Amino acid sequence: MKAVRKLKRDKGAELVEIKIPEISSDEILIKVLATSICGTDVHIYKWDAWSQSRIKNIPQTLGHEVCGEVVEIGSSVKKVKVGDLISSETHIPCKKCLNCLTGNEHICTNGSILGVDRDGVFSEYAVIPESVAWVNDKRLPPEIASIQEPLGNATYAVLGEDYNIYGKRIAIFGDGPIALFAIGVARCAGASKIFHIGVFDFNMEIGKKMGADFSLKATDDMDRVAFIKDNTDGYGVDIVVEMAGASQAVEEGLNSLRKGGRFSAFGITPEQKLQIDYNNQIVFKGIQIHGISGRKMFDTWVRVKNMLSSKKLDIRPVITHLFSLDDFEKGFEEMMKIPRTSAKIVLFPDKNLLNERLKEFKK
Amino acid sequence: MKAVRKLKRDKGAELVEIKIPEISSDEILIKVLATSICGTDVHIYKWDAWSQSRIKNIPQTLGHEVCGEVVEIGSSVKKVKVGDLISSETHIPCKKCLNCLTGNEHICTNGSILGVDRDGVFSEYAVIPESVAWVNDKRLPPEIASIQEPLGNATYAVLGEDYNIYGKRIAIFGDGPIALFAIGVARCAGASKIFHIGVFDFNMEIGKKMGADFSLKATDDMDRVAFIKDNTDGYGVDIVVEMAGASQAVEEGLNSLRKGGRFSAFGITPEQKLQIDYNNQIVFKGIQIHGISGRKMFDTWVRVKNMLSSKKLDIRPVITHLFSLDDFEKGFEEMMKIPRTSAKIVLFPDKNLLNERLKEFKK
Amino acid sequence: MKAVRKLKRDKGAELVEIKIPEISSDEILIKVLATSICGTDVHIYKWDAWSQSRIKNIPQTLGHEVCGEVVEIGSSVKKVKVGDLISSETHIPCKKCLNCLTGNEHICTNGSILGVDRDGVFSEYAVIPESVAWVNDKRLPPEIASIQEPLGNATYAVLGEDYNIYGKRIAIFGDGPIALFAIGVARCAGASKIFHIGVFDFNMEIGKKMGADFSLKATDDMDRVAFIKDNTDGYGVDIVVEMAGASQAVEEGLNSLRKGGRFSAFGITPEQKLQIDYNNQIVFKGIQIHGISGRKMFDTWVRVKNMLSSKKLDIRPVITHLFSLDDFEKGFEEMMKIPRTSAKIVLFPDKNLLNERLKEFKK
Amino acid sequence: MKAVRKLKRDKGAELVEIKIPEISSDEILIKVLATSICGTDVHIYKWDAWSQSRIKNIPQTLGHEVCGEVVEIGSSVKKVKVGDLISSETHIPCKKCLNCLTGNEHICTNGSILGVDRDGVFSEYAVIPESVAWVNDKRLPPEIASIQEPLGNATYAVLGEDYNIYGKRIAIFGDGPIALFAIGVARCAGASKIFHIGVFDFNMEIGKKMGADFSLKATDDMDRVAFIKDNTDGYGVDIVVEMAGASQAVEEGLNSLRKGGRFSAFGITPEQKLQIDYNNQIVFKGIQIHGISGRKMFDTWVRVKNMLSSKKLDIRPVITHLFSLDDFEKGFEEMMKIPRTSAKIVLFPDKNLLNERLKEFKK
Repeated sequence: MKAVRKLKRDKGAELVEIKIPEISSDEILIKVLATSICGTDVHIYKWDAWSQSRIKNIPQTLGHEVCGEVVEIGSSVKKVKVGDLISSETHIPCKKCLNCLTGNEHICTNGSILGVDRDGVFSEYAVIPESVAWVNDKRLPPEIASIQEPLGNATYAVLGEDYNIYGKRIAIFGDGPIALFAIGVARCAGASKIFHIGVFDFNMEIGKKMGADFSLKATDDMDRVAFIKDNTDGYGVDIVVEMAGASQAVEEGLNSLRKGGRFSAFGITPEQKLQIDYNNQIVFKGIQIHGISGRKMFDTWVRVKNMLSSKKLDIRPVITHLFSLDDFEKGFEEMMKIPRTSAKIVLFPDKNLLNERLKEFKK
Repeated sequence: MKAVRKLKRDKGAELVEIKIPEISSDEILIKVLATSICGTDVHIYKWDAWSQSRIKNIPQTLGHEVCGEVVEIGSSVKKVKVGDLISSETHIPCKKCLNCLTGNEHICTNGSILGVDRDGVFSEYAVIPESVAWVNDKRLPPEIASIQEPLGNATYAVLGEDYNIYGKRIAIFGDGPIALFAIGVARCAGASKIFHIGVFDFNMEIGKKMGADFSLKATDDMDRVAFIKDNTDGYGVDIVVEMAGASQAVEEGLNSLRKGGRFSAFGITPEQKLQIDYNNQIVFKGIQIHGISGRKMFDTWVRVKNMLSSKKLDIRPVITHLFSLDDFEKGFEEMMKIPRTSAKIVLFPDKNLLNERLKEFKK
Repeated sequence: MKAVRKLKRDKGAELVEIKIPEISSDEILIKVLATSICGTDVHIYKWDAWSQSRIKNIPQTLGHEVCGEVVEIGSSVKKVKVGDLISSETHIPCKKCLNCLTGNEHICTNGSILGVDRDGVFSEYAVIPESVAWVNDKRLPPEIASIQEPLGNATYAVLGEDYNIYGKRIAIFGDGPIALFAIGVARCAGASKIFHIGVFDFNMEIGKKMGADFSLKATDDMDRVAFIKDNTDGYGVDIVVEMAGASQAVEEGLNSLRKGGRFSAFGITPEQKLQIDYNNQIVFKGIQIHGISGRKMFDTWVRVKNMLSSKKLDIRPVITHLFSLDDFEKGFEEMMKIPRTSAKIVLFPDKNLLNERLKEFKK
Repeated sequence: MKAVRKLKRDKGAELVEIKIPEISSDEILIKVLATSICGTDVHIYKWDAWSQSRIKNIPQTLGHEVCGEVVEIGSSVKKVKVGDLISSETHIPCKKCLNCLTGNEHICTNGSILGVDRDGVFSEYAVIPESVAWVNDKRLPPEIASIQEPLGNATYAVLGEDYNIYGKRIAIFGDGPIALFAIGVARCAGASKIFHIGVFDFNMEIGKKMGADFSLKATDDMDRVAFIKDNTDGYGVDIVVEMAGASQAVEEGLNSLRKGGRFSAFGITPEQKLQIDYNNQIVFKGIQIHGISGRKMFDTWVRVKNMLSSKKLDIRPVITHLFSLDDFEKGFEEMMKIPRTSAKIVLFPDKNLLNERLKEFKK
């Protein structure tokens, strides 16, 4: 089968032919219908400092966002059957540690990640542990089913530990696909005002389609914190979702948060340490900072499924490109363009399916 | 000034001329712009068993839902100033009891209620304690400002103690104005499926406008519980909001709730005691029942204000009639018609303002 | 091996010799060190109406509370190894349904129960699914390790969905072992006043040892509700935990709960339906009723382990009898005596271990 | 009357004779029975950088922790009557802002603080706004009643937004009186292991009396993080309460917190900004940081009252010195000694009462 693999500890990746992998008793084999590119894949493709220290196994197949059809199941598999349309949670929990035992499998102490710690899904077939397989509604288009994983990130970052944002004001920093999804989640969950702070016009326009009430350019010479306060009766927003991974965004986010507000820390900053005004920004303001890693399993998946199935959340504006898996390099190049001209990019191993989806997509 | 008052312990009410009341140091006087009729007012008008035992002071002015302009303030008043456009929370808390001290003023141990325990607002001028005055955005139309109180009930019943209903399935029983508001709140807060169970066609149609995905007639010979389960993957809904105040609705609500679900008990049933299958409906199912009385002060008011100001929640379909205060009897008659041909009815002491609002209303 | 089994659909049980059972790939075999008798076992022993409709498989081994040593593991077992000292959660979840996927495995839609739906643990060896095996601290005495399951019930009933009871007042109705455990949990979790309402002197004395501040006899001719209100500044308690399974206790519990309080519904009542004053006891009081079935998996197990290991919770007063498994009938007879002269009874298949534990026990 | 006042913008304070102050309609006058010294008072006494920028009004009476008897009430006062034994919340809320309206008066946007923004309580008589007066149980000794305010800080920092710490492991950094109180709260609320990290032997010994299971010296050459992990099965603690106000403590606290844990940020650090490893300590670990300022009003007061009245929490080990108000300088000198030889110091305007309390104190 074809697979996009990292063959050596250097930048790039290659499309190669390998054997269809074998499954263990608690795994399933899927025929990949669609697989989408995440920023993490781009880091690994670029072979940046993080990837160099994080990636242990080379060669390894890239990718972790996926929609596939189950073609084989292991002997002990019970949740999934051949023919099911599945997606995959990518954090594979140990099921033994304190976090796994108390409802926090997404931050498992011993977890491994698809496409990071083991072969991923940029391939015609892929192996998925039963424990992370997610059975989809069969009516879900494959490119939509594939992006449920990052949509789950957005869901967790916006809602946190099941907080209610109805009638609250929120600022979302960042303009990658997850930030754009987050705008959609915030709108559907009842945020009364959504401030979107980003950099690239292309993505800011998508942000507006997803429901941003105010679009503020992070590069403009304006006082964004003052603007946000002016539009929230002087208080600042109730919730900040930081998805830019930039120290400027963390700083402005903390400054535009009201006393007692909630700050969702999702983005990874390039700096090893940030300078934070601990006394004034955290203690005296009585705020809460929540580190968001992964997504609640499987609470966010249930919500994502319900919102997509009911068509109350439409995330199609965020999907900007569909490519053949053969053209994965075009995908990566598109992802790396500055200024950005893409948001979510989905790859299809099967060109017929790609063409079919492209027809629908152009409507 | 004119006031609609209960003059004797018998059914009906009368429009009479009385003196403009005087305020204490911690009260304000408002010129009433709009005041809406609640089911409670109808109970008192009818002088039913509940009213006979509950109402202590006769004569007394009816009404508690209001929008007015502040014309005078007491010497110790600080939150409100002359000229403010205010509405009023109607549960007046003692500020001393355990509930008041711990964020539950709405169920104050010693609370009194506007229009029930003291003169209400169906009059040209009315006295409001500063502690329950709510300053409105001046751009809010008076008929909208007046219905914030029952909209707060709907908000509290749907959201409960700050629960997140995004991506959840909900069934709302009842078709009075608060149930119709609740549908709007549920839709804006991200419910992925909304089942509306009611009786009257007129109101069921408004329910659809407010966002009901399924309209089920409580009087139809169908298995509503089976229907709800069939449309929730066999589980039942995550949340039931009971606003019908009928034992059939309580029973069907408990039966259509999934294991571990939440049941908001808002409606008052005519029966003194209900027969409840405690073991199977509560204990084994692991559900939560929340009694909802009033609304969180002032958390629900803040959310209501933000949602109305942002125009993300449009409750105008629920307001079906605007009358002059002089025509209050037409309002009460309309409220009592079976089958129902009205939802929320708003009264205006000033006919010019009424005519102005009627023009807008007809658009 | 020896096993206490229900051989026919009639009252009683028999100690018989059967083959040591075989395990599947996802199960473990344990050598039972200690196993304790639950009220459910007594129901099945008596073959009451509930058992007759609930128990499907006869013959079947009784019992579900256990401590054992792992002697064999299935081929796919990862969490547990031979030699581990384990106890067992008794609710076996399907891992597929909505509740399992969202952190509520204890109320799994398709769950089965050890000793109810499949062979239990009143035997020399027993089969436990890996998914519910709980690895103990090896220093835990077997009779303590065995009662962690009902102690988990008590923990969940008192704490609910992670509520904080520090500085709160609580009333616990019932005097079975779980109610007595609940008193200990409430005391250790910081309840400032604990009211214990029960029937039997023997158990009420244990309740005092566990931390009850007030012991009220349910059979005494006194106004318990008035007593509770008098001792809570007139408000009533913040939390009621109903473990008596009696309509009188439900009624008195609802009456002694303060406005806005929380009612944990754990006990199963003999009546098919209870008469509940829905309007006054639930709606107007703004209370919450939580049905408690099983225990949070595995949050309560973690807490139980930490509290027992740290010796901050001492539940030994509740364990009143240790018997040989051969003498199981003495255990059941003791359990059925009225008035009660026992609380928790533990059976030991190995008489040497029993004698060793009896020595410790008599200290 | 006598009052300890800051007379000029320089270090120190003076005991002077001033007029008994007059009260407004919404204030009360108390005869001070006991008043305790807080670290904030020491900052103001020392006239450090923070005080210089924070204190606006000179001359001003110092002090905010108090127990007094009500001798006069304003005309609109309803909650309090002459003869009541009161203490005082020290954060005076505006009751108008978003935080006040939504249950967060302790972080009021426009709040003022007793003894910081207006005359305090180190005097024979003091003025207290009705809104912050807290009526005590008359049996509470005055030195205990006075320290309820800092005990409320400890309560809020340990419990946070009503989290349940039963069966959880906690590390408390700092050895001032509030940290010592926090140990007592954690013990009574059911923490299964309490790690206390401090500096001074005198205070560490009090920490042990309050319930610390492990006492770690912050100045010892040992790996405290490794020690904590070794004693928590390798995970780290569930909760960190940072009350040292030292960057080393923040750093070690974040490092010894488990994935998904909660960090209570209470201490004020001398550094203007802290260097925080945002990616690894917050985002990837999925932790929550809660800024703690003041105490929940009046939820913490209710809990404090219940715990002290029930004698389940004994904070007397933390009270180390009782002085006459005349000897306030001895108190301040004692507070400033390094190494520390005191924890909480209480001043009495009335020497007879002091002598009476000293007798009790020496038992």
